[in-house]
Order: sequence, then structure tokens, then C-alpha cells
Amino acid sequence: EDQKKQDAVKSSDPYSTDPERHPVLHINNLKPFNAEPPPELLSDSYITPSAIFFKRNHLPVPQVDPATYRLHVEGLPAGVLTLSLEDLKTKFPKHTITATLQCAGNRRSEMNKVKQVKGLNWGIAAISNATWSGAKLRDVLLAAGYSPDVAQWARHVQFDGMDKDVTGSSYGASIPLNKAVSEDGDVLLAYEMNGEDIPADHGFPVRVVVPGTVGARNVKWLGRIIVSSEESSSHWQQNDYKGFSPGTDWDTVDFKSAPSIQELPIQSAITTPAEGAVIDRSEEEVTVEGYAWSGGGREVVRVDVSLDGGKTWRVAQLRTSDRGQEPQPSPPPGRAWAWKLWEVTVPIPPETQELEIICKAVDDSYNTQPDTVAPIWNLRGVLSNAWHR
Amino acid sequence: EDQKKQDAVKSSDPYSTDPERHPVLHINNLKPFNAEPPPELLSDSYITPSAIFFKRNHLPVPQVDPATYRLHVEGLPAGVLTLSLEDLKTKFPKHTITATLQCAGNRRSEMNKVKQVKGLNWGIAAISNATWSGAKLRDVLLAAGYSPDVAQWARHVQFDGMDKDVTGSSYGASIPLNKAVSEDGDVLLAYEMNGEDIPADHGFPVRVVVPGTVGARNVKWLGRIIVSSEESSSHWQQNDYKGFSPGTDWDTVDFKSAPSIQELPIQSAITTPAEGAVIDRSEEEVTVEGYAWSGGGREVVRVDVSLDGGKTWRVAQLRTSDRGQEPQPSPPPGRAWAWKLWEVTVPIPPETQELEIICKAVDDSYNTQPDTVAPIWNLRGVLSNAWHR
Ligand SMILES: [Mo]
Ligand SMILES: [Mo]
Repeated sequence: EDQKKQDAVKSSDPYSTDPERHPVLHINNLKPFNAEPPPELLSDSYITPSAIFFKRNHLPVPQVDPATYRLHVEGLPAGVLTLSLEDLKTKFPKHTITATLQCAGNRRSEMNKVKQVKGLNWGIAAISNATWSGAKLRDVLLAAGYSPDVAQWARHVQFDGMDKDVTGSSYGASIPLNKAVSEDGDVLLAYEMNGEDIPADHGFPVRVVVPGTVGARNVKWLGRIIVSSEESSSHWQQNDYKGFSPGTDWDTVDFKSAPSIQELPIQSAITTPAEGAVIDRSEEEVTVEGYAWSGGGREVVRVDVSLDGGKTWRVAQLRTSDRGQEPQPSPPPGRAWAWKLWEVTVPIPPETQELEIICKAVDDSYNTQPDTVAPIWNLRGVLSNAWHR
Repeated sequence: EDQKKQDAVKSSDPYSTDPERHPVLHINNLKPFNAEPPPELLSDSYITPSAIFFKRNHLPVPQVDPATYRLHVEGLPAGVLTLSLEDLKTKFPKHTITATLQCAGNRRSEMNKVKQVKGLNWGIAAISNATWSGAKLRDVLLAAGYSPDVAQWARHVQFDGMDKDVTGSSYGASIPLNKAVSEDGDVLLAYEMNGEDIPADHGFPVRVVVPGTVGARNVKWLGRIIVSSEESSSHWQQNDYKGFSPGTDWDTVDFKSAPSIQELPIQSAITTPAEGAVIDRSEEEVTVEGYAWSGGGREVVRVDVSLDGGKTWRVAQLRTSDRGQEPQPSPPPGRAWAWKLWEVTVPIPPETQELEIICKAVDDSYNTQPDTVAPIWNLRGVLSNAWHR
């Protein structure tokens, strides 16, 4: 009797089949599931283990049978190309990249402190780094009949997920066509994350990985790819995930006036010591650690750390692998998809009662983070990349 | 007798054959010639007239005879390709782009106010916008035998100018190979500026125009192109035009530790009202004008203007042509090489004695300008792109 009742509840809840999650995650929202790891775990491993990789779902996790899974590629003159998972794995070369994904709302909580915004109250850990393997989107589009002629009229590649809301609409997003078809764009139709099948929360069996581009365009549980003259018509492409002036409010906002977020700006944050951590006065030094990343394949070239609220700065050491491991070879220009972890050990200034630790990063276009949050505040609380303190 | 004496003086001065310059220019250095226009003239025309386009020479202007001019393309397996000006004009399709060039030292004077830096004391007008016509570097490299195989070992394309110092060394610089050979890179071997032969100060008869990239790599009076595994060995590539942490001084600087500046970060400045301008209190409104530009082909998507020192912000109107003219069609993503001019008319807050006008811009990767100068201060005073106030 109890079992029946439980089953009835389950079937009425579209989230009942969501996977189990790692208990260490800090949950920002349960249904849909949105959670981030404790910051200090992020800098513990260059590659974030999948179980603690931040999870940002917009809808219930769909149950996809890999045997019957089909991916449809539409919008090209040759008609529709339909691929099974086996096709994707066997008909196209397998590529592997290391790429950092970041939610547009990472560090939104700092904007909330300035003035209330709309959105999940992410801390600094809605960002993670993984290896991804799969077919290149470019190769699949070429197999589906893409040729440079198509670029005469097409501008965007749209992605539809297999996750659906109560009305049956899927999550959707799009990216510029040139990113999708560029040899250097490295956009993958990924079927592996960190060397294993992609976990349910991250898009099993196939997600698109658009390196250098905001998480929201890295559509999970990918069902359809559409080459088009238009961006995705989805809510998330048209009326969300855009940046506005701090003076723009919900009465005056015109979502058509801003471009959809694609490449993200330079970002960095301190993972340890944690905010408010007490450091033993008998220690003479403090080690500060964190991450730094920039969108668009721009490489992080420097992280500056201050212990005195920004008056003086030291340069942190950057690394592209776990401590004691060989560094990764330098990526070609414009293809630095992965974050750098950094650390610096600094003498504690004598007579100090409180340390105001700040970090800021610079990428290879010498873009820098803004000093403060208020002037980049926006009503959706996205793109929060001021100095972290 | 006088004439003889004058000739003798002339022949001992390598700058004696430098061209005449427009009297309106503000001269930062006479020999070599470095000058910028009055800021308010910049926003008067979307295309900067060549006569007032900022001039940044590192050496005396060379006298080049177009009839005997030769361009040498070296470093490719096929050997050296030598081209006359006529060859460049007739053997390759002519392309025209509108591109903004900016000196790495633009706005250096604001860094000098924080702490003395080394370099010419540029104001906000070491930036200008022109149309450039010429052959695509890509086409010339292909004609010289470039093929994708070359990218296995080559990483850079070096440029040598025909301007020489007293020891006979030329100005030189390099750019990444992928920028040079990309179809979307739009790098030109330009022989026209604003529809006419390139003026002597801007590189007659041929300069390279590397849109989206710092002025210093846009080598003028181009004599040699070298495909190489290495960056240019020139002083300006190796030991200059790089960014450092504010804590780095001349005793500690290691030029090898920083990448050469290539793409520049987001920039904007107010051209009018001029600093310290007195605005009539009987006026109810003030019109603020300026420019905004970002490197790497990133498009400026918004300029925010504040009249109260950054507490509140208004969104300026952007334009891509002269007032009353049709706007330019939107460039493809990643190929926004030209600046935008902007203006906003704002009511003057009542009871105001002094307006603190500030502008800041955002590009399509949502990169923003830093709030203040001191944290981006660097010993060479380059990359000065804090909010302009
Ligand atoms: Mo997101
Ligand atoms: Mo420059």
C-alpha cells in the first residue's frame, strides 16, 4: 500500500527520476536541481570530478535510452541527418578538450548584496573544469551537408535539449555559426566527461560543449541541431542571459536591445582562505588559492593578489595541472579553453587585525576585472566578475 | 651660402625629410614625430581625416620611391617572394576595411598622474579610425607558398619596416600566424588610407593593418614579411609593449614573463565636454560625446555615462557613421574592427556645482573597463583603459 502511494507521488513529480547527487554540494535550488561545490574543493583538483562539477539544470533531468537515442541535424539544404549514439561514436573522429564551463550567474550573490536581482543565489563555485570527448560539431555539420555557401544566409546554430517543461517545450539555445563551423572553435558533441559516459546531470548521452562560451549555450541532453538565419527563439536566448546597464530595471528593460551572452569576460576568485576564515596570528605567511578563467579562448596571463584591500599587489603562480604534475602544453592562441588555478604565499603584514584579500586576473587581450560590483550590477545578476574580496 | 648651410644641417638630421604636419595636432614628441588631434575633433567625424589621424613614429620617416619599392616575403618553403607595388595592386584582389588603430600608450597621461611611467605622455586621442585598402596578407602568403602544413612549425608572422635607426636597424614587430592567415582576420597590406595613397606619416607606400590589434604591430613602410617559429626579435616586440602588475618596477621586471600585447582591451573616452569645461548653468541639459572601441574584433554593445561620479548611469546612443548618415551594416561576429561614436544628452541635476562625468563601455564578450587607474598602473604606462572621467 505504502509503495503504491509512493509511486503515485513519484509519477506526479517530474523530478522524481532525477539522479542522486553528492552530499557535499551546496544546493541553490532542488527542482530543477542547481548546486555548486564548496569553493575549497575547486582548487583541490585541476580537473573537477564530475560528481562535484557544478550542476545547473533548467528543467527535470530527462531519462534517455542510449540505444534509441537519436540526434537530428536540420536546416541544411541536404535535409535532415539523423544520427544514433553509435553513429556519433563511430562515424566521426573522437576529439578531447579540457574546457571550463561557467554559469552566467556565477557570483550572483555578490550582486544581490548591492541590490536584489532575479535568479539563483550562486556563490563563487558555479564554474568547473572537465575533459570532454566527442565528435566535432564542425564534422557533423559537414557530414550533414554544410558548405561555406550556407554562411550566405545562415548565422546561427540552434540546439534543443530533450528536457521538457510541463507544456512540453524543451530547453534551447544557439551560438553564432562561425563558432560552430570554425576549425579552431572546438565545439564538441560530447559523449564523455572526464573519460566516462556523461552523467545524467550533465547531459547523458550527448551534450554540446561550446568552449569559451557561457554555460547556458552548452545544451545538455541534446536532441536537435538546427542551422538557421535566426537565434534560438527560446526564452533563455531571447529574454534571459543578457547584460544590461545598472540603471535598467524591470520596467524599462528591452531584451532586444542587448546581445545574448556568448563569450564570457575575464573572471577569477579566491577559493581559500574562505571568507571570514580566521588565520592564526602565529603564522607568518598565508597561502591564498583560487581559479582564473576567461571566455573566448583567451588565456589567463596573470593574477594579482592584494592583502591590503587593493593598495599593493603580488603576482600569483599559475598552474594548468595538479600540484606536482607536468604543466599542460600551451594552447594555440585563442584556444585556451581551460581555467588556471593559482596560489601565492604572502607574509602577513605585522600589526594586522584583518586581512582584506583581493584577487583580479588579466587575460591575453589584457582585459581586466572591474574593481567593484555596483557599476556592473544588472537586473538578472549575470556577468558578476568584479574583483573578488 | 645659406642654402648650403641649410642643406648640411638637413643631411645631418635624419628627420629633416619628415613630411609637413597639420598645425592642429598636439605634439608629444617632435623627433620621432608623435602627435594626437584635439579630442573634440575625433568625435566630429566617424572616419578620421588622415591629416589629423594620430601619428606614432618610432624613427625618422623613410623616403620610399614607389617605382622601386619591393616587398619581400620570406620564411616559406618555396623561398622568397618579391613583389613590387604594382604587383600588390594588380595581382591580388583589393579589399577595404574600416578599422580603428590605437596606440598601446593611449591615455598614458592618466597613469602618469598616479605614478611616473616611462613613455610619451599621450592624452585620450592616440586612437583614430580610417578606411584601409590593399591586398589581404592571407592572399599574399598563399601566393608565396603558405599551406596549412606550415602551421606545424610556424607560429608568427614578422614585419620589418623600412624606417631605420642610426645603427641601421629597422622597426619590427610580429603577430600570431593564425591572425595572419585566418579568412576572418582581415589583415591587409594596405596601400590606401581613406581612399588615397597612404600618407608618408602612415607608411607610404605600404603598411600592414592588423585590425583589432595594438597599433605597434601595424608596421608602416613595410619592407619584409617573415613567417617564423619565433616572434620578432625587435626591442618593441620583446622588451616593450607588454603589460605588468602595478607592483612590478624596473628593478624586478622580467619582460619574458608577459605576453606581447596583441588584441587590446575594451576602451572608451569622453571627447566633449573637454576636461574642466565650464557649462552654462542656464542650460538644462548637457550633451556628452565620445568614442568606444574594443580589440580582437569584439563589438562595442553599450556605453554607460554617469554625471554623478558613478552613482547612476545612463545608456548612450551609439553610431557607426557620421550624424544623419545611414549606419554601417553590422559586422559579422568577431570582425567589428571600427570604433563607435556615442552621445547622450542628460539633464543637469539641480543644485549641481560640479559635474563628475564618467564613461565606461562594454563589448560583446561583456568585457568592461576597470573603475580606476592605480590597479592597472604599469611601468610602461600601456593599456590605460580605466573609466574615463
Ligand atoms: Mo547558466
Ligand atoms: Mo604604440
